[in-house]
Amino acid sequence: MKPDTEIIVRYAETDQMKVVHHSVYPVWFEAARTDYMEKAGYPYARIEKEGILLPLSRLECSFMEGAKYGDTILVKASIKKLSPVRIEINYKAHRKSDGVLLAEGVTVHAWTDENLKIINLKKQAPDLYKLLESGLEK
Amino acid sequence: MKPDTEIIVRYAETDQMKVVHHSVYPVWFEAARTDYMEKAGYPYARIEKEGILLPLSRLECSFMEGAKYGDTILVKASIKKLSPVRIEINYKAHRKSDGVLLAEGVTVHAWTDENLKIINLKKQAPDLYKLLESGLEK
Amino acid sequence: MKPDTEIIVRYAETDQMKVVHHSVYPVWFEAARTDYMEKAGYPYARIEKEGILLPLSRLECSFMEGAKYGDTILVKASIKKLSPVRIEINYKAHRKSDGVLLAEGVTVHAWTDENLKIINLKKQAPDLYKLLESGLEK
Amino acid sequence: MKPDTEIIVRYAETDQMKVVHHSVYPVWFEAARTDYMEKAGYPYARIEKEGILLPLSRLECSFMEGAKYGDTILVKASIKKLSPVRIEINYKAHRKSDGVLLAEGVTVHAWTDENLKIINLKKQAPDLYKLLESGLEK
Repeated sequence: MKPDTEIIVRYAETDQMKVVHHSVYPVWFEAARTDYMEKAGYPYARIEKEGILLPLSRLECSFMEGAKYGDTILVKASIKKLSPVRIEINYKAHRKSDGVLLAEGVTVHAWTDENLKIINLKKQAPDLYKLLESGLEK
Repeated sequence: MKPDTEIIVRYAETDQMKVVHHSVYPVWFEAARTDYMEKAGYPYARIEKEGILLPLSRLECSFMEGAKYGDTILVKASIKKLSPVRIEINYKAHRKSDGVLLAEGVTVHAWTDENLKIINLKKQAPDLYKLLESGLEK
Repeated sequence: MKPDTEIIVRYAETDQMKVVHHSVYPVWFEAARTDYMEKAGYPYARIEKEGILLPLSRLECSFMEGAKYGDTILVKASIKKLSPVRIEINYKAHRKSDGVLLAEGVTVHAWTDENLKIINLKKQAPDLYKLLESGLEK
Repeated sequence: MKPDTEIIVRYAETDQMKVVHHSVYPVWFEAARTDYMEKAGYPYARIEKEGILLPLSRLECSFMEGAKYGDTILVKASIKKLSPVRIEINYKAHRKSDGVLLAEGVTVHAWTDENLKIINLKKQAPDLYKLLESGLEK
């Protein structure tokens, strides 16, 4: 239902260890998050236009194997936890050619207004809250 | 009077050619630009607070030799041209250890308001204009 | 014959002017270059495995309008000049939704070995040279 | 004894939330790691020249408050755990102007050879191991 986000490794993303630098994975996770919301029919750009931001409060990532230039990566995002004030999202990044898991991670976000003050999403955007709730991992 | 900006190469800035990726130089140029304004006593963050932005309209860069992890780089920014609607800045990036020129470049910027509409800097911020004029390359 | 490379703006690519930072365009150009070679049947990752590198010697870019988060960008790469020791590539980045040209640029590259010493591509990889020649802009 | 690493926020590091993008903190942590080893008299560039790499196996980061353009950040790196096959490093990033803690994190690294195979650091580089051991947090 929610196919993975396909990412082609960029040359600029490699480092002199000849693998993708670890700081790139949070950017890929974000691309998968963006894609997830796009496919769910509520693009993140629209959420921001409604005055709601989603800053990170925590990031965790475990690295199993390096992604290389020439690789295509499949990143899967899934909602792990949801509350009116925060959301927790899981990610898995696989190498497309052989399905090997390269990295997995979690991001925790607060729901805030444009001044980065915490809001109650369930009250402020009940439709969005319901939509996210329906996507919660079983 | 305006000493160079010192930059220590970051591991993340290297690519699998084992040199700094070319897309990093515009970021270093910007750091030198920021430092130049800071030293001139009119920080760019203050300019933005006054509602003035400085988006790029053009970037040029020539690469002579690669910067490497472990290198310290000296970047010199100097004002090449100034008009009420635009500014042109020159950059030279040298390796500190032996003074070798690694790259040089130019950025051209428009003076705009927060909606990215062109403004006349001489009218809107005469003090800033005068300050920049005094820094023009002879 | 060589359709454009489609790029979805990443949140991390924006800056506080609420447009994509100019240093990102060289990365997009590179993605288009990678895609061009992939579609031509001679992936750049393969070129590197054969011991040939393609470092930049020059970059130029003009910025007309800012790309925004939520935009999809189409980047077209085309070979402008080719010689046994260098290659010059042109890029145009359009916003997909309305076709507006956001930026255009040029990169000039040297053909080198793994130690970044200039090589003669026509001699060292005649098949690749012929392939690139056939793609030259008319 | 080991003063903090001073980092000036770069414009390119901000995003459209007008704070530094979260993917930048791992890069700052790395800069602090590099600086730590430099000050300890065993630069990381030298470690790599001896054929030893230090890829990440895990990254964690908690974000308390956003860093802004115009801020100077102090990043403190300290060794939390050390074994012959891995090292764990802690980071704290404070805003220089008022000392507020913006983020803190941990990176876990494996000691490997150039093919990213695990090595025993205590055997392969006993001097480096001893040096790191002496820096362990009490």
